[in-house]
Amino acid sequence: MSFIEVSIDSHFPLQNLPYGIFSTKDNTKPRIGVAIGTKILDLSVIKHLFDGPYLNGKQNVFEETTLNKFMSLDKAAWKETRQRLQELLSDSCTTLKDNDELRKKAFVEQNEANMHVPAQIGDYTDFYCSREHATNVGTMFRGKENALNPNWLHLPVGYHGRASSIVISGTKIRRPNGQTCPDESKPPTFGNCKLLDFELEMAFFIGSQGNQQGEPITMDKADECIFGLVIMNDWSARDIQKWEYVPLGPFNGKNFGTTISPWIVTMDALECALCNGPTQDPKPLPYLIQQEPSAFNIDLQVSLIPNKSSKEYIICKSNLKYMYWNLKQMLVHHTIAGCNLRPGDLIATGTISGPTPDSYGSMLELSWRGSKPLQLDENLTRKFLEDGDTVTMTGFYQGDGFKIGFGQCIGTIISALPLPT
Amino acid sequence: MSFIEVSIDSHFPLQNLPYGIFSTKDNTKPRIGVAIGTKILDLSVIKHLFDGPYLNGKQNVFEETTLNKFMSLDKAAWKETRQRLQELLSDSCTTLKDNDELRKKAFVEQNEANMHVPAQIGDYTDFYCSREHATNVGTMFRGKENALNPNWLHLPVGYHGRASSIVISGTKIRRPNGQTCPDESKPPTFGNCKLLDFELEMAFFIGSQGNQQGEPITMDKADECIFGLVIMNDWSARDIQKWEYVPLGPFNGKNFGTTISPWIVTMDALECALCNGPTQDPKPLPYLIQQEPSAFNIDLQVSLIPNKSSKEYIICKSNLKYMYWNLKQMLVHHTIAGCNLRPGDLIATGTISGPTPDSYGSMLELSWRGSKPLQLDENLTRKFLEDGDTVTMTGFYQGDGFKIGFGQCIGTIISALPLPT
Repeated sequence: MSFIEVSIDSHFPLQNLPYGIFSTKDNTKPRIGVAIGTKILDLSVIKHLFDGPYLNGKQNVFEETTLNKFMSLDKAAWKETRQRLQELLSDSCTTLKDNDELRKKAFVEQNEANMHVPAQIGDYTDFYCSREHATNVGTMFRGKENALNPNWLHLPVGYHGRASSIVISGTKIRRPNGQTCPDESKPPTFGNCKLLDFELEMAFFIGSQGNQQGEPITMDKADECIFGLVIMNDWSARDIQKWEYVPLGPFNGKNFGTTISPWIVTMDALECALCNGPTQDPKPLPYLIQQEPSAFNIDLQVSLIPNKSSKEYIICKSNLKYMYWNLKQMLVHHTIAGCNLRPGDLIATGTISGPTPDSYGSMLELSWRGSKPLQLDENLTRKFLEDGDTVTMTGFYQGDGFKIGFGQCIGTIISALPLPT
Repeated sequence: MSFIEVSIDSHFPLQNLPYGIFSTKDNTKPRIGVAIGTKILDLSVIKHLFDGPYLNGKQNVFEETTLNKFMSLDKAAWKETRQRLQELLSDSCTTLKDNDELRKKAFVEQNEANMHVPAQIGDYTDFYCSREHATNVGTMFRGKENALNPNWLHLPVGYHGRASSIVISGTKIRRPNGQTCPDESKPPTFGNCKLLDFELEMAFFIGSQGNQQGEPITMDKADECIFGLVIMNDWSARDIQKWEYVPLGPFNGKNFGTTISPWIVTMDALECALCNGPTQDPKPLPYLIQQEPSAFNIDLQVSLIPNKSSKEYIICKSNLKYMYWNLKQMLVHHTIAGCNLRPGDLIATGTISGPTPDSYGSMLELSWRGSKPLQLDENLTRKFLEDGDTVTMTGFYQGDGFKIGFGQCIGTIISALPLPT
């Protein structure tokens, strides 16, 4: 138990302790905080309290404006920090609890803080690891027989994304303009994206020193390089993407914006959520095989507040455990040819769709390419996103009497820029 | 004329003055230098000599270990720096010329310097802008009739690449291991890449403040955001790429390493190389149209020193002017949906192939997928690259009595890591 009050439904109990970067009106410098209940514990204020063998002499990592330096330490240092935080926040420890002055300086209300992208993201990679999602999209575009490409069951398919346009939850997303070609017998036209979509994803930050170029990370070391997870909304302009993506993949259909939730939930906190993933058949090549359970039982949900409405409609319920390829397999495959990962790099799962239609993680799938509009209310439907729509993603592991939660990943669509005349 | 001796064939006369990041045995701190003849002028030593209206108070940009801060200034500041450098290096200016002590500190021999990647590259994008290259590759994989995809003549096709594995000329490149599937009726196998290739490209660094997310850069502002150009070798593992790239584009087939030449030649230095590019038919959409000549007449060459040989074989002669889409069109298209570019970002052209077989910019094309091995010598052929092979790319604009050159972009292949047992 913590001396900080934590409600039973809170995403941020003592068992979680996720890291984020925040600032306040009084102190606009971004700094490292840990979420506990409805509060943030400011690590820059209590850095002197971390004096264990792994952190000693390295407390300056808590004075940074991003988490990169802390991430670049190793798993032992992360574990020590977590342990010390649990101690300092516990009801039985007086260090913080009984020091009024320090407490006043060290705690900030979450609703009075501005959250920031928690790391300088050197490179961002997006995978495509849900079999259900790949099958749905493949069925729509190539028919049921050819839904999965020949490589799909043999390797986690991934591509490089745009790091510069990753934004923090709450940032408004402008509807993009671009080139589309609805009728390929005619020339393309320029205009507003008409098929704007979300994608429900999760993403992990690379921790430790990563790897040297040319030196792959093997499966037995993969754990040591994963710092923690966030929820991600990989906004997608389906009409732009469709016209541009052959043969080199998505570009302007994705790079206008990607939203992440602000709190990085560590792999240590998520140990209790480990479970078995889907059986992999055919058996992967040896470099992709691991023995232990490596999926995570994290319930995910997407809701929509339509433009001008105050009502929130739940439109998707999914779970991270549905992913065919797990996080370690993505990481190992990413480095197998020699690509180097750096602390702070971000690797996303791709859209997390489940087996049933209410678990599909994008409007493309939920409305089946617009052919089955989502009936939100008697008079309210959606095929894709409209201006003013707000999409909220959230997720948690349900423990025995506690939640390990991710908070929210929110974005509202604002209208496109006027077309040039 | 400069008081520094510059031979008629030098890539680095007073008309060029490219920027790079170097260090020396005596001073291992990376710092900003300008190439002149066979020397480097150390800007960190002479920063106090830049006191014009645009640089005044900002001379600390010359104390950085990357060029990002200098790049983030504007075109007026870059022009002022260039003008001042030309003045300081000219025969008629005594400031440097007649100050023995300062000269001794300020100049370093290029052959005594280590060069570094000149900027912290936030994001790296690779385009696919040579019609000849796209046609060659398309013909090999889809036949002559379907060589160019429907979108190709309407937009510069591009994709996001890996920034972390961009290395400086001279860095050895390890042959990657990975998953390939030479016979798709059988399962894939794991092993050494057998079809290792180079790609002759050029790439430009983003300068100025770039753009805000959601606010595209229009054609009339594009010039202000391009700092300068380098030569790039986009190493490619064709067998890995072929198996993995559908439907999201190249990944491990490219991300094991990309080499750039060390000296960034500025757009101001390249003004004299401007020329008309190919006629664009069909006419691009209005946002991609510009009036002025926007191609560059830069002669490019690739040579190969085969393993254990001391002889260098020229295997490709191409020119940047062959590119169908020009640099400004790439930049404008990149931002049209709202993607933000930052100073130091790198944008590459894709393989620069010309109209004749001796101008093809990759082994894939030169050996036509291995079907026409390159005959280097009586007993020496190459389909793809072998361990120990060294590839050198170079390029210059030939002015009237001077060259605006890029130096060299070199890489040697080292053998793959042993396969796990």
